[in-house]
Amino acid sequence: MSSELRAGEEAVELPERTDAGVYFIGVIHTPWRTRQECPKRGDRDGPICTIAVDERWRKGLAGIAGHKRLQVLYWMHQARRDLVLQTPYQRETTGTFALRSPVRPNPIAVSLVELVGVDGAVLQVRGLDCLDGTPLIDIKPEHGARG
Amino acid sequence: MSSELRAGEEAVELPERTDAGVYFIGVIHTPWRTRQECPKRGDRDGPICTIAVDERWRKGLAGIAGHKRLQVLYWMHQARRDLVLQTPYQRETTGTFALRSPVRPNPIAVSLVELVGVDGAVLQVRGLDCLDGTPLIDIKPEHGARG
Repeated sequence: MSSELRAGEEAVELPERTDAGVYFIGVIHTPWRTRQECPKRGDRDGPICTIAVDERWRKGLAGIAGHKRLQVLYWMHQARRDLVLQTPYQRETTGTFALRSPVRPNPIAVSLVELVGVDGAVLQVRGLDCLDGTPLIDIKPEHGARG
Repeated sequence: MSSELRAGEEAVELPERTDAGVYFIGVIHTPWRTRQECPKRGDRDGPICTIAVDERWRKGLAGIAGHKRLQVLYWMHQARRDLVLQTPYQRETTGTFALRSPVRPNPIAVSLVELVGVDGAVLQVRGLDCLDGTPLIDIKPEHGARG
């Protein structure tokens, strides 16, 4: 994490404590080893990536193969959390909540992926754009009534 | 939280500790005071709800008015977290990750809302389905390149 600020950027003091805790429930494997290598956004024609769900949660995948499109939530563990104003490369300074930047108070990404296959507790998907080794926090069907 | 299980449901032992912490960055106000009153899913023709962002993060809203549709992430603080198999009312037993139920290891909801207005640090939106007083964890524009 860097504490450097670009022109116009503004950081706030983070709260002393967090309010709730997240479990990492698996790990995402992609071809990208550095943030520079990651695509700017997921591409459903991009490479197949894998999502390995921890054994504890494996039964939670029952029925997943019936859903072609999934929302995947993951934790962007390398992103700083204290910027309220950001100046993306070659763009205007903008509020964090008007950007999809990984830099945000809670670095949770929501990606829409296409499910290609299921092998035990491992899903093959297309459409991710994150670093290899990114912690998984949730998988949900794209649509459908609340269960 | 209830520890009762319906037919076919299965709970796991939760990990001893969480892996990352979430900040509650604001609060959502809706007309619904109990889970029974909440609609099953958000409706963009539903009532206007408000999202009040904490003062600390207020500047993060700069530029938000330029986005008509937003993803809102919130913490479903009343949901249990330990079910891997669930039996929704009048439906088959299904894995947690094949449902959009609030009951999941990380009770984070992702709702798509329409932005109706902005008044200081308060957004008026349509499309939410959560309890009054639900903690806010993120707001993102629906589309757009990563900043």
